Amino acid sequence: MTERLVIIGGDAAGMSAASQARRMKSAKELEIVVFERGHFTSFSACGIPYWVGGDVRERDQLIARTPEEHRARDIDLRMRVEVLELDVPGHRVRARELESGAESWVGYDKLVIATGATPIRPPIPGIDAPGVHGVQTLDDGQDLIESLESSPGRRAVVVGAGYVGVEMAEALINRGYEVTVINRGPQPMATLDPDMGSLIRKAMEGLGIRVLCTAELTKVLTDDTGRVRAVATAEAEFPADVVVLGIGVRPNTELARAAGLPLGSHDGLLTDLSMRVRGYRDVWAGGDCVEVLDLVSGTERHIALGTHANKHGQIIGANIGGGYATFPGVVGTAVSKVCDLEVARTGLREKDAHAAGLQFETVTIESTSRSGYFPGTAPMTVKMLAERRTGRLLGVQLVGREGAAKRIDIAAVALTARMTVDQMIALDLGYAPPFSPVWDPILVAARKAAVAVERNR
Amino acid sequence: MTERLVIIGGDAAGMSAASQARRMKSAKELEIVVFERGHFTSFSACGIPYWVGGDVRERDQLIARTPEEHRARDIDLRMRVEVLELDVPGHRVRARELESGAESWVGYDKLVIATGATPIRPPIPGIDAPGVHGVQTLDDGQDLIESLESSPGRRAVVVGAGYVGVEMAEALINRGYEVTVINRGPQPMATLDPDMGSLIRKAMEGLGIRVLCTAELTKVLTDDTGRVRAVATAEAEFPADVVVLGIGVRPNTELARAAGLPLGSHDGLLTDLSMRVRGYRDVWAGGDCVEVLDLVSGTERHIALGTHANKHGQIIGANIGGGYATFPGVVGTAVSKVCDLEVARTGLREKDAHAAGLQFETVTIESTSRSGYFPGTAPMTVKMLAERRTGRLLGVQLVGREGAAKRIDIAAVALTARMTVDQMIALDLGYAPPFSPVWDPILVAARKAAVAVERNR
Repeated sequence: MTERLVIIGGDAAGMSAASQARRMKSAKELEIVVFERGHFTSFSACGIPYWVGGDVRERDQLIARTPEEHRARDIDLRMRVEVLELDVPGHRVRARELESGAESWVGYDKLVIATGATPIRPPIPGIDAPGVHGVQTLDDGQDLIESLESSPGRRAVVVGAGYVGVEMAEALINRGYEVTVINRGPQPMATLDPDMGSLIRKAMEGLGIRVLCTAELTKVLTDDTGRVRAVATAEAEFPADVVVLGIGVRPNTELARAAGLPLGSHDGLLTDLSMRVRGYRDVWAGGDCVEVLDLVSGTERHIALGTHANKHGQIIGANIGGGYATFPGVVGTAVSKVCDLEVARTGLREKDAHAAGLQFETVTIESTSRSGYFPGTAPMTVKMLAERRTGRLLGVQLVGREGAAKRIDIAAVALTARMTVDQMIALDLGYAPPFSPVWDPILVAARKAAVAVERNR
Repeated sequence: MTERLVIIGGDAAGMSAASQARRMKSAKELEIVVFERGHFTSFSACGIPYWVGGDVRERDQLIARTPEEHRARDIDLRMRVEVLELDVPGHRVRARELESGAESWVGYDKLVIATGATPIRPPIPGIDAPGVHGVQTLDDGQDLIESLESSPGRRAVVVGAGYVGVEMAEALINRGYEVTVINRGPQPMATLDPDMGSLIRKAMEGLGIRVLCTAELTKVLTDDTGRVRAVATAEAEFPADVVVLGIGVRPNTELARAAGLPLGSHDGLLTDLSMRVRGYRDVWAGGDCVEVLDLVSGTERHIALGTHANKHGQIIGANIGGGYATFPGVVGTAVSKVCDLEVARTGLREKDAHAAGLQFETVTIESTSRSGYFPGTAPMTVKMLAERRTGRLLGVQLVGREGAAKRIDIAAVALTARMTVDQMIALDLGYAPPFSPVWDPILVAARKAAVAVERNR
């Protein structure tokens, strides 16, 4: 008998699950129905700032696989259909075709929730005015580009200085705008400690971006046509021809909440290691709508990142397809390009370590990307946290130029393996003058951290 | 009472040991005498090809610390002094001042042997003719540059296609020479499997380098002045205005052998984990003259590489200075730039794995350095070996362009942690469009390797 798999959400997690399940089971064994409320499938949200900024020319370059390509692989993909309700005991979902408004109940044997995340919009006056844009979906990106082209101006305000905010600020500079970034925290990039974030601020200011920190948006002001003309904080008003919101996202789990499925403290779905929703035999969830285990602190986190969503989808698909796979958790790695800087982090920041009840040593070192004498060598700042007494690596943050970002992977693997900084000193890392000083910056930091641990044992 | 530490060799290992010991013990506690037979200390041998090729302009840029700088830190550095004999039971060494010929015995409480490695010169007619150059020391580099400038020509032959040979071939192309490389093995870069080496060959040929493989030098032919004019293999003669030897090095351990110290099967000194010569309480050794434990195969190897020499020196200095440090071994990581390619390897090649008695799966994948849609993305080939049944990672080789080489560090750390390829699939590596596809190439290879292991369990 043919089983039916229903998947809610046709982006990274949902379509990876569909593809992997299809690889393992034929259409005779498993019918796969995917509901996607948007216009696109399997697109790279991370690429949107580069599309807006002009590095990526065509929207369709961001689409890994079109609906037609999915359908050609026996996946029953229903675009512009929104799921309004889950009836978990009844094994069915209520779906509405957005164009026609037609609604129906669709039964399932197995369900995957891959509803992603929703950009945060602060509940302030004018926030929904034309000219105020999120950048979560390809539709959002298209709207923003159309807005920039149809209402040309010269002043842009970006709200939030996380990865997306900073990337969008740079994209708008590239399009010739004067850009002001309004950021709630003390420094840009709250995923870094403030001392490292201050390096990002300098680079942004070097590009001509105005960076306002510890500032909060209170109002969006509009003109006679209702379009944005300025934004306000408690202190001042800033003229704006366009406003981009990069405040962050939250798990899109209203459906799941209404159905009584278990949510964590960040409102993400809670799953077991096989990505099955805890306590529900036939329901899986993955991608930006779930919480993941942070292997360093031992707590659940919400991290919206395409690389995790792809892994989740593949694991879910393998398990539904009769295989076996698990997602052990994350260590919190993230890399980004900010102006000419490469920024990377993994593991715990100081405040995360405090929150986890850990005592730790902190060191910061300056090194270079290549041998000091090699052309193109550039400075790199590495901050490292190690647990007091045990010397276990807790986290690394680094800011540098070409060749810096992916060095964070060394620390990501070391965190996964629960190495101590002492063990890291002996790591046999690649050395040649065009790629590294004889002591890689990560090793220099590990040596200094090991000394700090030893001193304060 | 003041102890005396004698160090033979003033390059990476010797001077790192001297510096670290000095940091830990004052001149009152420890006298440090270093004998160096050459003209330079603490130089980057790895930088010589870039100096010859013109990327590095000045010889002195390759010198990390001059004799004067070392002396200013209370290190009694004696340049142009060669040690001729070790009297280990007598705790003394016989040293000759090379300029004056004066000889004397110098006693020690503790001895460090850091005599480095010697380039291999095949014992064939004409090998010592003017115009035939090694590139091991700064003196060698200086001689070669002077030879290129004083006897300009247009044809160069490089013997050997390991890292040094390939880098020298490129350097000579950069200086306008027609370059022929004569290589004994089936492909360049015998540190890679031949299938990966063939990618290097293509890149070299693309630069206009003539690459002869499975060819062996039999003779160096000279002109009336005694200078090289050509080289011969069994099959043919090749005109040559200059010849560069890049055949490899062997441990410089004649002194140690004569003194009865333990050597391994590669003629390198054998040490314990604290870098103390096995069975000798007061004698340490490090750098290119020792063998190191290969953590993957469990056997001893000889690897001449500045990054290991620096670590050895620091460990020896810490132990002599009253601290405690060990060198656990290597996994065999090496990175190199060959023309516009980045080449990297770590762990075992197929033949190493066979030699170690291991059964394994091999996979090779093609991926890209960045998201496929991101400007500047470039192809990357990754080969991965995993042990049969256990799935333990055994080795990775990769060839790509910008951003490829240092990805090998991910595998180097995973090898150190003895991870399986299955565990590697879940690694939380840095992802952003300018730096990686959503599945990093290393993860793509790990997934494919895990499937191969599973299939053949």
